[in-house]
Amino acid sequence: MAHITLSHKAYKHNFNLISSYVGSNVEIAAVLKDNAYGHGLEQISAFARECGIQSVFVKNYSEALRVSEDFAHITALYGMPEGKFSPHIAFVVNQKEHIYALKKGTKVELKVNAGMNRNGVESKELEDFILAILKQGLELVGVFCHNGYGDEKDKTFYETQNTFASIKTHIKALSLKYGFKLPRFHSLSSSGAIALAGEGGISDDLVRIGIALYGYLDVAFANPISAQLQKVAALYADRVSTRYLKKGARIGYSGCTTLQDSSQISTYDIGYGDGFFRVSEDHKVYTAKGYQILPRSSMDCFSCLCSEPQICVFDDANVIARAFHTISYEVLTHLSPNLKRIIIK
Amino acid sequence: MAHITLSHKAYKHNFNLISSYVGSNVEIAAVLKDNAYGHGLEQISAFARECGIQSVFVKNYSEALRVSEDFAHITALYGMPEGKFSPHIAFVVNQKEHIYALKKGTKVELKVNAGMNRNGVESKELEDFILAILKQGLELVGVFCHNGYGDEKDKTFYETQNTFASIKTHIKALSLKYGFKLPRFHSLSSSGAIALAGEGGISDDLVRIGIALYGYLDVAFANPISAQLQKVAALYADRVSTRYLKKGARIGYSGCTTLQDSSQISTYDIGYGDGFFRVSEDHKVYTAKGYQILPRSSMDCFSCLCSEPQICVFDDANVIARAFHTISYEVLTHLSPNLKRIIIK
Repeated sequence: MAHITLSHKAYKHNFNLISSYVGSNVEIAAVLKDNAYGHGLEQISAFARECGIQSVFVKNYSEALRVSEDFAHITALYGMPEGKFSPHIAFVVNQKEHIYALKKGTKVELKVNAGMNRNGVESKELEDFILAILKQGLELVGVFCHNGYGDEKDKTFYETQNTFASIKTHIKALSLKYGFKLPRFHSLSSSGAIALAGEGGISDDLVRIGIALYGYLDVAFANPISAQLQKVAALYADRVSTRYLKKGARIGYSGCTTLQDSSQISTYDIGYGDGFFRVSEDHKVYTAKGYQILPRSSMDCFSCLCSEPQICVFDDANVIARAFHTISYEVLTHLSPNLKRIIIK
Repeated sequence: MAHITLSHKAYKHNFNLISSYVGSNVEIAAVLKDNAYGHGLEQISAFARECGIQSVFVKNYSEALRVSEDFAHITALYGMPEGKFSPHIAFVVNQKEHIYALKKGTKVELKVNAGMNRNGVESKELEDFILAILKQGLELVGVFCHNGYGDEKDKTFYETQNTFASIKTHIKALSLKYGFKLPRFHSLSSSGAIALAGEGGISDDLVRIGIALYGYLDVAFANPISAQLQKVAALYADRVSTRYLKKGARIGYSGCTTLQDSSQISTYDIGYGDGFFRVSEDHKVYTAKGYQILPRSSMDCFSCLCSEPQICVFDDANVIARAFHTISYEVLTHLSPNLKRIIIK
């Protein structure tokens, strides 16, 4: 049956590599959101725990509950709790309504907009939000932003860091003024953390490492990490059916592929219903060993000119991403949670 | 929180419409594979049961178990059982190994290749496979093919039907020769069923209706059904954050969008991590009300020039499919099973 292998060794290697580069003054937090970037939340959660990771970021309350026993600090990045919840789950405040939706004692992290203009409150709103948080009796455990310019490490990247530095100064002043405990500060994801670590410039309390822990760091700047990371996931498909077809035979929906030579041909049990992208006549997609996935692929299977009982569809999501003009993140996160996961030690 | 609405009324309407067109001599089976084409297996299973549907097709054993109490006849299209299994689940034989993997008394459906050259055994192998099935003591409950030319209703469509007619004749002869009960025959999915029903030409025992029950039938031939179907699913996103930005402000990863005019802008909690396609600068994507989803969308959210608390991302998957040069099926099946489903009566 089709399955995803998850390399425990690769994850650990990536963690050690990133840790030693970032240094011991900064906490490494794991980003486990979106089913651990499509890898499998429970499985990657176990890997992260074994690496000694204490803080994680998940998508929402529902994901937080699935790993609630595994980590000391869990932040649900989107949405609010429904019903009872573990007291160590923190929720993210992006707008006033979020504050009023939470009951006294709930942990929160305040997201601020430092230039990405996407989520978070404005710098000028900081005091207003802090006061509302304090009035509601919430526990402010973090203040953070997302620097969305890390891949390029350009001027805007540094401007965003400067904005966040001002935000930190402001929060520190407010902490003194209103007597609340200083929250943890974080602004960097994989690319930004690696960028600044190389310059010895991380002044945050933690960095949120997502894609790099899964083995990917495709950035526009030179760094010693990208080439050394190891991919954690690989996708495998099993043969469903095999046959010998003569030159000129048509295959698949609307007979889209016509055989140029007589050949052995097989179908394999991965299709777009598994979250893998649909291969149409617009795409040239090859498996890890170089077999072409013939257009058009179906919801549950694709055809290849080979007869191996099992094939590796990809062990590097970038190969698939390039064929579909997208990024590895999308290839990975779309993989169905219903695909079986097999851990490779 | 982001969610998918599922219209019970639309599903029932589609079922009644298709039933009355196909006629009472043919059983309507529901295709529930791939999480009910992304809609939600348990929810759509309940709709199908309420319509009186008796036979369903699911992706694999794991899906079959999730609806095992709901229907008299469940066929797992791919893969073999693992461990114990309900005796009314049938498995599909595509190659000899599948026969040997099953224990005595297991129900099977034999898939035959009638011209799609994808899955199924060859016509010339029929007797060989029937003998192996009988020898293994399996119960042959169905013989079927998939006519992958239904959308066009061209020459090859009819050739495939003729091939399947020969297969049926052959199976009937083998049934007399070896004394096994005649299995049910089926070859048509939504498009083929509607194509032949219009000509009064369905001679199978059942038709497998997938996409049409979900409200879609985009075929190249004129028919009275396509325009009357109602979409079952719609995707909604909730506002995460909202702000006023001045002309020239940059938004999202790498500041990809630059505002042409000062405007109110909000983020909504659907991203490519939810299985929705990633909106990059290569795409022009609009919500149901016509708000542009600004590139680039993130893993968990996208930005729009509006401030509504909730927006309908799509209520017709074809709109999204066109923007991404694909088909409604892919848009729907990629939707994360982790998105909340809300049933609309």
